[in-house]
Amino acid sequence: MKLANDLFLRAFTDERLPRPPLWLLRQAGRYLPEYRASRARFPSFMDACRSKEFCAEVMLQPLARYPLDAAILFSDILTIPDAMNLGLSFGVGEGPKFASPLRDERAVSALRKPALESLQYVFDAVAHCKQALTDHVNGEVVQRIPLIGFSGSPFTLACYMIEGAGSANEFAHVRRMMFQRPDLLERVLEVNTQSVIEYLEAQAHAGANVLMIFDSWGGVLSPSQYRKYSLASITKIVAELKRRLPGIPIISFSKGANVSLAAQAQLGADALGIDWQTDLAEARASVGAKITLQGNFDPALMATDEATLRRAVHDAWSGFDPHHRYIANLGHGITPDANPELVHVLLDEIHRSANA
Amino acid sequence: MKLANDLFLRAFTDERLPRPPLWLLRQAGRYLPEYRASRARFPSFMDACRSKEFCAEVMLQPLARYPLDAAILFSDILTIPDAMNLGLSFGVGEGPKFASPLRDERAVSALRKPALESLQYVFDAVAHCKQALTDHVNGEVVQRIPLIGFSGSPFTLACYMIEGAGSANEFAHVRRMMFQRPDLLERVLEVNTQSVIEYLEAQAHAGANVLMIFDSWGGVLSPSQYRKYSLASITKIVAELKRRLPGIPIISFSKGANVSLAAQAQLGADALGIDWQTDLAEARASVGAKITLQGNFDPALMATDEATLRRAVHDAWSGFDPHHRYIANLGHGITPDANPELVHVLLDEIHRSANA
Repeated sequence: MKLANDLFLRAFTDERLPRPPLWLLRQAGRYLPEYRASRARFPSFMDACRSKEFCAEVMLQPLARYPLDAAILFSDILTIPDAMNLGLSFGVGEGPKFASPLRDERAVSALRKPALESLQYVFDAVAHCKQALTDHVNGEVVQRIPLIGFSGSPFTLACYMIEGAGSANEFAHVRRMMFQRPDLLERVLEVNTQSVIEYLEAQAHAGANVLMIFDSWGGVLSPSQYRKYSLASITKIVAELKRRLPGIPIISFSKGANVSLAAQAQLGADALGIDWQTDLAEARASVGAKITLQGNFDPALMATDEATLRRAVHDAWSGFDPHHRYIANLGHGITPDANPELVHVLLDEIHRSANA
Repeated sequence: MKLANDLFLRAFTDERLPRPPLWLLRQAGRYLPEYRASRARFPSFMDACRSKEFCAEVMLQPLARYPLDAAILFSDILTIPDAMNLGLSFGVGEGPKFASPLRDERAVSALRKPALESLQYVFDAVAHCKQALTDHVNGEVVQRIPLIGFSGSPFTLACYMIEGAGSANEFAHVRRMMFQRPDLLERVLEVNTQSVIEYLEAQAHAGANVLMIFDSWGGVLSPSQYRKYSLASITKIVAELKRRLPGIPIISFSKGANVSLAAQAQLGADALGIDWQTDLAEARASVGAKITLQGNFDPALMATDEATLRRAVHDAWSGFDPHHRYIANLGHGITPDANPELVHVLLDEIHRSANA
């Protein structure tokens, strides 16, 4: 389907753009009062994720406020382990918890790639989001902006599956298994890798224009461990998806792994997410000119003030070319305390600074 | 006073050592049942820290079990902000909390360097630890092993003082102040810097042989922010202490700031702590041959098994010279789930691998 605004897709090419496209990590989220109102209709977060109507509704909310250049599927990164029946739940005000974490050989041996049917609700949500993005312009059916599908990375999924919860102790159980039984960790990663390939392929078939892999926890590893246990499986996924889905851009985002950006540049992804702990000019120097960078304004800026935010955008681009292979975004998800008005300022300053 | 074992001090020189000295971050800690028994006598953690008898007792506990090469003062990194009357408390099973975090200009303006008298209990603990380490050998009074004194870094103290608590949100309030009111953050850092200088100087006068600065949170910043807001104040402290205390080695440990090791090598410290997310050979390549490195076995290893731990020590030293300017240690504090028996294995493997 023709896109009314294809600026985001053009950022994956060598074309010089008049300004960088902008979208925001977690742009459909708790900083928007309309999101909180929609979310309140569901008893649990996963219940909300299972409603394609909810997913499309909240996906559209930031687009109704701001002229953003990409939409992203509303879902969770833990849908795959949830479909593996590890007993996912979200406590009130807490992160995810798994009732049956993978701690021993028996549990790991029993792990199976989930049937795609158990994730059909996600693909339905993708299709519903896609539908919600279509518009009629001069009698022609067009898609307003591209839709991003996504998954957690195999290592990041493994972190939650093995630890059973978030990062309180920097995933000590995962690191213990990595040292003590690397064969078990490798098996979890392999099951996850095959699952993520099928999961992302199905999202593309359901209508996603771009795919993104969130490696939230690759950064807890040392560089050599990161290459072996996180980057290797992302590389495998990207190679297979490039074969199955030629032409679909892929973004890989390993938060906290900025020290390994040069290695990430070799993984085969079209774009790399950059966290706010990395200087953009240094990131560009690490990866070369053929990779698109996405990021990396500090989410804390969205809870400051107009002058501060404008200055920070200006500073972030010092020594960096924002017109070439660059997608403006935050360096991590926008936080609940963000001021929604500042998104307008961010957009305006991106237009202004790009033309300065 | 003469040292019975000065291997640790010799690691700060160019001398080639038969094996690296070993001590463990948080070696007096909850992994030892005798520590838990001693700690249970006090209603709160800070009450325990205020008893010089307790500090010396638990400082000695790991030394009674293992032939370690350095002792460290038992204290907390938040003694300085506590003495600034910000209302420090430790909830059960939680991290530190400040009742009056520094959030506005008024609070920051009112901040003062604490009177050294309010920290006298720490200097008394240093002196008591020093006394507890003395021994009589052939009629001569000797100190068994060197004693390390320590402080939190100005930025790390500021993190807790401004955020009011630990790292749940990667110190969003601190980052907000850094962007919005850098002048306020600079003032907090300056007060902290002067406080840390006096605090560490007094610990040296009370008997500490080596001083260590724990920068637990410098790694939440981008490299340029880290240099400006964390490294700059550590550099100022080290320069001043080198003037006041010539001959006292100083160790600086910025966890999570491995990407900035080359910059850290310029700060003037004798040694740099290396976290477990950094490969030792790469760290050596970043800092050159004139700086001592301390670290960096993954604490998760101490909850594995003998074969795994031996292999990991061997692997960690691949391409790395452990005989020159190197102090063996963990890359972060030993955790409560560590197996105390594995410390013997670690010691044995360090002897064995160093002689292989």
